[in-house]
Amino acid sequence: MIKSVMVIGAGRVGSAVKARLAERGIEERPDADVILLCVPDRAIAATVRGQTPDASQWVGHTSGATPLSALEPHERRFGLHPLRSFTLARGPEQLDGTPAAITGETDEAREVGFELARLLGLEPFPLAEEDRALYHAGAAIASNYLVSLHRAATEIFREVGAPESGVRSLMQSVIDNGFELTGPIERGDWETVDRHLDALRKRKPELEPLYRIHAEATAP
Amino acid sequence: MIKSVMVIGAGRVGSAVKARLAERGIEERPDADVILLCVPDRAIAATVRGQTPDASQWVGHTSGATPLSALEPHERRFGLHPLRSFTLARGPEQLDGTPAAITGETDEAREVGFELARLLGLEPFPLAEEDRALYHAGAAIASNYLVSLHRAATEIFREVGAPESGVRSLMQSVIDNGFELTGPIERGDWETVDRHLDALRKRKPELEPLYRIHAEATAP
Repeated sequence: MIKSVMVIGAGRVGSAVKARLAERGIEERPDADVILLCVPDRAIAATVRGQTPDASQWVGHTSGATPLSALEPHERRFGLHPLRSFTLARGPEQLDGTPAAITGETDEAREVGFELARLLGLEPFPLAEEDRALYHAGAAIASNYLVSLHRAATEIFREVGAPESGVRSLMQSVIDNGFELTGPIERGDWETVDRHLDALRKRKPELEPLYRIHAEATAP
Repeated sequence: MIKSVMVIGAGRVGSAVKARLAERGIEERPDADVILLCVPDRAIAATVRGQTPDASQWVGHTSGATPLSALEPHERRFGLHPLRSFTLARGPEQLDGTPAAITGETDEAREVGFELARLLGLEPFPLAEEDRALYHAGAAIASNYLVSLHRAATEIFREVGAPESGVRSLMQSVIDNGFELTGPIERGDWETVDRHLDALRKRKPELEPLYRIHAEATAP
């Protein structure tokens, strides 16, 4: 049973995790049962390099794509990736019910990852080490690229004087409708698609490739 | 003042509009003050072609990108485009507070469009005829392309055994956080981006172009 956790890193994820552990009364100390690295991907190996593994301690990181081998020389290790976009503007409630990908090389490692995830309020699921990079690419497509779509549409709305808040409410309506496809591509209306492309080419040529690649991806 | 409206078309938009007019006690009849075409873009011209304009009647369409000239021979005409994704699974409440782009060639035409929009519960804003195609391209980017991102991420999650519902909750967290960019691109972590690209190339090569174009669009 996990009685103490040491969190390293106080960014978006680390802050939420620390706050949750405090709520749960879990002690934070250097010789804790589990050390959890909530640092940028590139800092993981640098953080643990040269450490002398403690035979009783587990070490985990919260990166989605970084291999577990980045935690060398530690062998009692696991990955715990909470699947959501975190912000410093919110607290530990961001963890509630959030799915978390757990990777371990042994049953024991996976058990520790699952236990810690549940302690944090997360909903753990197992993820194979060899699937992590692809999984995280999927997460980036869903989250980071939503941001680029929002930016592109907002830029256009600003240009034509349409209310920028309409981009958010439009996106929300698509989610609320269970991602049902509507609009010209759903209707096979290539005349309208051509009208869009003409307008983009003339006034926002930098957005034409993005539009085109999605038109291809969206068409049945 | 609009006392009667004739709605043509009973698709996603037409059904919601008809239901709202019924709620408001607005009469639907062929010689109504306003005829509103809620038909697919390509059907607009075919629907009005050969009609004899009634000097007292207004004719509008709910298409985002179709020019008003598609309403020929009618000259008392306007465009009213509700900015949201509609579904037959919901009712007229979909109109409540939804922004609507109003286009008219005269002040009177715009006034009729604004009045009808408010009658329907929409929040009208003016949109110039020459901006319609670009505006609608922006709307398609925000709504239809959200669907393709969702599909791509869901396909990957299925492949790696991650919970598919996690794609929706992840997207929702990005919206809830005001589209704050997080993840490897925000951190300038190109090693992770390369890991994603490697994984996609090996296992989902059809998604690599989509990933790449967004990585470029998202990078600062």
